[in-house]
Amino acid sequence: MPNRDRYHDVVRRALEKDGWTITDDPLRMRWGKKDMYVDLAAEKLLVAAKGEQQIAVEIKTFGGPSSVADAQKSLGQYFIYLSVIKRVEPNRKLYLAIHEEIYDEFFTEPLGEILLSDYQVPLLVFDPDQEVIVQWID
Amino acid sequence: MPNRDRYHDVVRRALEKDGWTITDDPLRMRWGKKDMYVDLAAEKLLVAAKGEQQIAVEIKTFGGPSSVADAQKSLGQYFIYLSVIKRVEPNRKLYLAIHEEIYDEFFTEPLGEILLSDYQVPLLVFDPDQEVIVQWID
Repeated sequence: MPNRDRYHDVVRRALEKDGWTITDDPLRMRWGKKDMYVDLAAEKLLVAAKGEQQIAVEIKTFGGPSSVADAQKSLGQYFIYLSVIKRVEPNRKLYLAIHEEIYDEFFTEPLGEILLSDYQVPLLVFDPDQEVIVQWID
Repeated sequence: MPNRDRYHDVVRRALEKDGWTITDDPLRMRWGKKDMYVDLAAEKLLVAAKGEQQIAVEIKTFGGPSSVADAQKSLGQYFIYLSVIKRVEPNRKLYLAIHEEIYDEFFTEPLGEILLSDYQVPLLVFDPDQEVIVQWID
């Protein structure tokens, strides 16, 4: 089992406030002999779509000394989980959860912008003080 | 300047044996205010193509306790460098250099296979004892 991120419970509560039901904490995935744990899985009834929306959320704190190194690790983790999730749970959409300060500091500057543009990583941006989701970027 | 990988000089010599001229050690790239250093840049005259082939090589040692974590970091680094290199040096092809034991242990098992299949990361597989390149995977 992995260490819990600093904002794990914050993001969990922010999702619940947004109407999501947490179904897995963490979500275990296995491929071959490798186990992986995505921080949270949640689902929400969508009346318009007459169906259930399912997501998996990996929380990235960007707490290291280098934002480029933090971005490397986050992006690599996203792509590995994406490869596995699309095979084991193809209807579940994977998001990275990012503190709004990290979003403002890293993903709006030139390197962050080209990464979002090239790889279209879905982001859930949260405000840790209010414990709310401030933006979904798909 | 980054730390040099354990196999830096080995890969450098293997490239030279293979007819490459090392042009940058490391290759500095800048995007916005962020500096990045790819381990090696090299070029080779291709008589058939009447041109010069240019590559950048990032050496990944996979020396950590978890091969999944090593793969995350390597894949993330590859994608960040790829976003930058295709904008600043669009004719240069980016490779990850991998010890042949890592290739045999990680990239031929189920998780490694789906990563190579999904993301087509170019690999240069080297034998550190003979100091030769044993395989180019494009």
